[in-house]
Amino acid sequence: MDTYLSAKRTIMTPGPVEVDPRVLQAMSMPILGQFDPAFTNIMNQTMDQLRKLFQTENEWAYPVDGTSRSGIEAVLASLIERGDRVLVPIYGRFGHLLVEICERYGADVHKIECTWGTVFSEEEVINHIHAIKPNIVACVHGETSTGCMQPLAQIGKACREQGCLFVVDAVATIGGTDVLVDEWHIDAAIGGTQKCLSVPAGMAPITYNQRVEEVIARRKKVEQGIATKDDLDEPLRGTVVASNYFDLGMLQDYWSPRRLNHHTEATSMVYALHKGLAILLEEGLPHRFARHAYHEKALIAGLTAMGLELFVSHQHKLPMVTCVCVPVGLDADRVRAFMLHHFGVEIASSFGPLHGKIWRIGTMGYSCRKENILFVLAALEAALLHYGTKIETGKAVQAALSYYEQTEKSAMA
Amino acid sequence: MDTYLSAKRTIMTPGPVEVDPRVLQAMSMPILGQFDPAFTNIMNQTMDQLRKLFQTENEWAYPVDGTSRSGIEAVLASLIERGDRVLVPIYGRFGHLLVEICERYGADVHKIECTWGTVFSEEEVINHIHAIKPNIVACVHGETSTGCMQPLAQIGKACREQGCLFVVDAVATIGGTDVLVDEWHIDAAIGGTQKCLSVPAGMAPITYNQRVEEVIARRKKVEQGIATKDDLDEPLRGTVVASNYFDLGMLQDYWSPRRLNHHTEATSMVYALHKGLAILLEEGLPHRFARHAYHEKALIAGLTAMGLELFVSHQHKLPMVTCVCVPVGLDADRVRAFMLHHFGVEIASSFGPLHGKIWRIGTMGYSCRKENILFVLAALEAALLHYGTKIETGKAVQAALSYYEQTEKSAMA
Repeated sequence: MDTYLSAKRTIMTPGPVEVDPRVLQAMSMPILGQFDPAFTNIMNQTMDQLRKLFQTENEWAYPVDGTSRSGIEAVLASLIERGDRVLVPIYGRFGHLLVEICERYGADVHKIECTWGTVFSEEEVINHIHAIKPNIVACVHGETSTGCMQPLAQIGKACREQGCLFVVDAVATIGGTDVLVDEWHIDAAIGGTQKCLSVPAGMAPITYNQRVEEVIARRKKVEQGIATKDDLDEPLRGTVVASNYFDLGMLQDYWSPRRLNHHTEATSMVYALHKGLAILLEEGLPHRFARHAYHEKALIAGLTAMGLELFVSHQHKLPMVTCVCVPVGLDADRVRAFMLHHFGVEIASSFGPLHGKIWRIGTMGYSCRKENILFVLAALEAALLHYGTKIETGKAVQAALSYYEQTEKSAMA
Repeated sequence: MDTYLSAKRTIMTPGPVEVDPRVLQAMSMPILGQFDPAFTNIMNQTMDQLRKLFQTENEWAYPVDGTSRSGIEAVLASLIERGDRVLVPIYGRFGHLLVEICERYGADVHKIECTWGTVFSEEEVINHIHAIKPNIVACVHGETSTGCMQPLAQIGKACREQGCLFVVDAVATIGGTDVLVDEWHIDAAIGGTQKCLSVPAGMAPITYNQRVEEVIARRKKVEQGIATKDDLDEPLRGTVVASNYFDLGMLQDYWSPRRLNHHTEATSMVYALHKGLAILLEEGLPHRFARHAYHEKALIAGLTAMGLELFVSHQHKLPMVTCVCVPVGLDADRVRAFMLHHFGVEIASSFGPLHGKIWRIGTMGYSCRKENILFVLAALEAALLHYGTKIETGKAVQAALSYYEQTEKSAMA
């Protein structure tokens, strides 16, 4: 049964990535009851760590108990009232996900699309904001499906001026590059655990400001069966959120000093998140971001030395995901299977129109280490040679090594 | 930061309860990618284990990534179409939760209520089914809020005859007593991890049969961005499920051989569930159920010997939760705090009208052990004496010990 006990992989996908061993250790600690002060203390510490991660002064920063898209859905479900206009700029698969969720919650969605592999100019998005006058703008920060990163700072400012809410899916970018929630005027942001935080999937950290809290307060409801007389007397000033599990008013009551029971908090996942954030804050955000950029360059040096072409090489490349064009005629999935089978190295395919056309190599969190970069290059070269692809032989690992040697030397000088 | 590293509790609440140490160990294993065959193999094994847990031949049995109520919401969200009539028998807090969720998804909910601490006769529920002719009957199997267990076998049969679907919240009972999904004609059942399975909260195992699958198939949708031409050509024959995260059509595609990406599976939680189920199946369901009933009797012997009164002692008492009346004039929460602070022993309060009136003591899964029974009795007696309550002194632990000695002797004879 315990086949997983023996498999240990080098995971170089855009998530999930390798979990920091110290996080794994934290998950093996005995659990505490959900209202045990020793546990609520950890919950409070986690909120504080999340504020630092999101670089925000927001009061509210806590995880939703579910995978990343649970956080996205919780935010959108709690904000969208039937008929609300939502503008979604789409530049990859996860933009479509935002549309999908918004539509299910009854929004009147306005989409704008650009070619996969490119991003929008902020001006273009802002022009649409002025034209459409949405209640909410929902945008992906880092599209792992295409390896692009959308600039957001001016869009946030425009949303604030226009009086609409700005919701950002920062699942891929959080902890790997700057996500300046306050400075960019982001009203609600959702992060991912299984990417640059190197914590297993299963939690979705979110943060939101007072503008969002006001909507939540207007729609707040307390469950029958635990409501006090005061709760029941409180008139509802908005529509009830269509989901109970994703009702942020209830989650907020649970994460607040009132500790009003909603779900049973996922104890071991909180330990994991708490430890992952402690490690991240110990490393420090600036150092962590620099580390991601540093190893990205080594990977690119190796890939291009091999003669492979990058799918995205413009200034809006996502720093923690590198997309590589699959040489013509090659079965992309067979190469991946070969690497996994023989080397235990995992890289990713992509979705929809890009499936089979690009590989996606992640350099995220704990997986973003020198030995992993060297190993993924070696395994990819071996797989390509095995399938008879014409590449520059013996160059990739050497190029990465020489990048590392040079930078290490100059760091010592 | 690592305050949780030092606290190790005796958790005797109705969940979360102590996690089996072997499950904790499984959670500390390095993770695998979500499409790694080594991982999808574990996913398939987990489905097989869940079929055994639910005592069903259903094809579909898999976890939803979220706490228990995420499983309940996923089932109800995927079944309820706006205006569907749902009958909910309420005999405690979690019946209200079912109503709450059904209402949010637009159901026309018919409630019947009985006094907390009692259950319905099956005949009464069946009469209401005949009168109301609901599309769905949703019922809690074990109400941890009151310590009662509702008989279901005849209700399921009546639902089948009436042509309506029978959804059962078996969060509290699964793995601790019989939940005969097929025999009782349950169409969809939801279990909990953090109770009798002794796995941390964060996953909700569900199972459903072909009658449910037909509804799901009718409402099936594939996400834009990953849909093939065939998917897009497939006409929708029902309304789209109001939630993306809880759309069982999508979860089913992900857990099926197609492995169509939805979320990123919560790897470490799957390890935990997989290991928890392996331990449970190794113990064997009959033995496990007998163990729960066995220690329940020891606990009751101790509590009554102390002179305390049980809130529920009729035949429909929930075997894994024992509710005790708080002696008049005593601050129930102070007693609990005393036990936690000095003994590291946690018991629970209850909700709404029962808060402060009863304590709830769980005997679930790994927490359901002799030493825990003895320790909770000793700690409770000490706390009651500390607060000057008149009880029979020195009797509780002795009564439990003598029960254990007698049964151990007769087992050896």
